[in-house]
Amino acid sequence: MPKALEGVKVLDFSHLLQGPFATQLLGDMGASVIKVERPGQGDLFRTMTFKNKWIGGTESPNFLAWNRNKRSLAIDLKSPEAKDVLYEIARTADVIVQNFRPGVLARLGFGYDDLSSINPRIIYCSGSGYGEDGPYSTRPGQDMLLQGLTGIAAATGRADGPPTPVGAGFADQIGAMNMVYGILSALYWRERSGHGQEVKVDLMSGLLQHQNQELVWVMNMQENLDRPNSSIGHPGVEAPFGVYPTSDGWVTIAMSPFQKLIEVLEAPELTAYNVPARLYVERDEIWKAIAAHTRNWTTSALLEAMLAVDIWCGEIKQHLQAAEDPQVVHRGIVQTYRHSTAGDVKVIGPVVQMSATPPTIERGAPTVGQHTDEILREYGLDNAAIRDLRNRGVVS
Amino acid sequence: MPKALEGVKVLDFSHLLQGPFATQLLGDMGASVIKVERPGQGDLFRTMTFKNKWIGGTESPNFLAWNRNKRSLAIDLKSPEAKDVLYEIARTADVIVQNFRPGVLARLGFGYDDLSSINPRIIYCSGSGYGEDGPYSTRPGQDMLLQGLTGIAAATGRADGPPTPVGAGFADQIGAMNMVYGILSALYWRERSGHGQEVKVDLMSGLLQHQNQELVWVMNMQENLDRPNSSIGHPGVEAPFGVYPTSDGWVTIAMSPFQKLIEVLEAPELTAYNVPARLYVERDEIWKAIAAHTRNWTTSALLEAMLAVDIWCGEIKQHLQAAEDPQVVHRGIVQTYRHSTAGDVKVIGPVVQMSATPPTIERGAPTVGQHTDEILREYGLDNAAIRDLRNRGVVS
Repeated sequence: MPKALEGVKVLDFSHLLQGPFATQLLGDMGASVIKVERPGQGDLFRTMTFKNKWIGGTESPNFLAWNRNKRSLAIDLKSPEAKDVLYEIARTADVIVQNFRPGVLARLGFGYDDLSSINPRIIYCSGSGYGEDGPYSTRPGQDMLLQGLTGIAAATGRADGPPTPVGAGFADQIGAMNMVYGILSALYWRERSGHGQEVKVDLMSGLLQHQNQELVWVMNMQENLDRPNSSIGHPGVEAPFGVYPTSDGWVTIAMSPFQKLIEVLEAPELTAYNVPARLYVERDEIWKAIAAHTRNWTTSALLEAMLAVDIWCGEIKQHLQAAEDPQVVHRGIVQTYRHSTAGDVKVIGPVVQMSATPPTIERGAPTVGQHTDEILREYGLDNAAIRDLRNRGVVS
Repeated sequence: MPKALEGVKVLDFSHLLQGPFATQLLGDMGASVIKVERPGQGDLFRTMTFKNKWIGGTESPNFLAWNRNKRSLAIDLKSPEAKDVLYEIARTADVIVQNFRPGVLARLGFGYDDLSSINPRIIYCSGSGYGEDGPYSTRPGQDMLLQGLTGIAAATGRADGPPTPVGAGFADQIGAMNMVYGILSALYWRERSGHGQEVKVDLMSGLLQHQNQELVWVMNMQENLDRPNSSIGHPGVEAPFGVYPTSDGWVTIAMSPFQKLIEVLEAPELTAYNVPARLYVERDEIWKAIAAHTRNWTTSALLEAMLAVDIWCGEIKQHLQAAEDPQVVHRGIVQTYRHSTAGDVKVIGPVVQMSATPPTIERGAPTVGQHTDEILREYGLDNAAIRDLRNRGVVS
């Protein structure tokens, strides 16, 4: 079947997470992505993992997660010859993506002004931590730092404990999706106008946007939402919304008529709490009173009883159990791709379903410079020229 | 200045969060969005807030956060006349968005088959909790439930405490961005092929996708990443990465050479921990040893000392302080729009910067049916016909 972004050429200078996830999303939809990496070490993410364990003994899960559907061109950006090669690619490219600290890539000769003068139709997307100017523009813009700054860490967890970052790099992933949103909007406009443009995305404003609902309340009330002293699941929401213990695990209970839950738990003494004046103010006490009951149920019995009366609820799973969940298995979300050194690698496949142009995994993540020769040949270099670049350490 | 999605017409049947945020993102880029609401009460989100406080006394922050740049058409979807009106709009619309439970809107006559037979160029995007088939397809698909199911709650917080949901509706926001990703990809393809298609997005797979890096490790190692017993900031990352107390607040410290931190803290006794074999395994003990030092610093003194040697770090702020942060203020991220009953409303403005087609807020969120007459007139109804529909309760 065709792909939605077939024919779109992406020249990808990005590394770590924000940029690579964005270009993977474009690649899943059929865009042709050339990933530019340093000869030798390549993308810094190739050197990172969790608990010092590597897939197939050598490969980074972080890198394998965000770099499928790309080809790797390993080339030294500081060499004069790199300009010849990359300008030639940029001449017919549609999209540039980069997430160096502000100004770094422009100083190497690959800024928006450089590439748009070669190709005015180019869409040039930059990602940063805080934006490209202002008092923090030169600070390191790592994911957790932005979670701390923008309020999400202070809104997560318990009041008697510390502010709590999300246990995954959501700031980066959100930044990636904002890149895709900007790039695809710009591509659509270019189809109509003929003009490229510059797109800028940053982690800080992306995280604020994803907390708009909380921030609209806070900014207009001029009052913060404080973490609960229990496992109520959101600093602004009343009981019973939250996480509850069972005899063998944990369940979530979302907004549902409290009376239904009281009946399921056969706990009529809770009825006195079920008045608007108490549900938020006494959220922690109510949580404790409910938890005293839920502890007596197994997870499966409690879920079955609650789902039977359409109480919004669910099980809490760790990753391994989530990947094996019946609904996840039914949906075919976990897929496997082949990597040239790591072998078969399990990953989360493309998640948006499209009837006419379904996104797919066409190739696993590349090794550093795996496609250098192939790409250089496509742009007109002959074997002797490629050998020469290789001998001088420009490409690998 | 022009807008990237100028001329794109969106017929929006969505409510609550996932769909409305998606159509707001399209509206920010210049799409014309008609929001279809129930006469009277309107979108269910209009009845929800935090702590039972309302903006301007009556308006929901939840609704105001996700519904700018739209016009509201209040019409009873169950009335036969609604079909005439909405089919007429669908004839020239580009995009349909909806997030009813699977099958509900099709039973009312507004499914993909209905609308694509009227307009084969239509892009029809549905959002659900778990996907439209499989064992959980009829379960309620609320944000926190999916956080629980997909592993993010179990990966957040401390091992001696409960699994911890993120303190904002990130599952919904991620779902919204996946909608935009699918819709814009489909729009681009339609420019080239002439064909519309159906796009399906769900909260479950979106959250899994945003944990791909953790899941790639876990699924290929067949081992879970366990929460730390301290404020280390991610279940898979070694010390010192985490949240630390100061004498007057909290700071984040991300991946940086530990030796630099030891020097800043003047804590040479920590050097013994700085070996690969200890940094993950003894993460909780190391956290405590570092925290014993950071507690003696003020937040500003510690940040200044760490930033001077380029340690990746930041302050932890609550929402009110985040909104007033110098970098947030510099960037102009907080904007104000006018609402017809709530007055001036502070919100997070569009966050993607585009040089040729900057997204903007052109109108505040609508009241229920605020634009019913205007829209009906645009689609050819005269005043008498509109009065008749209104008298029979079809529109309001």
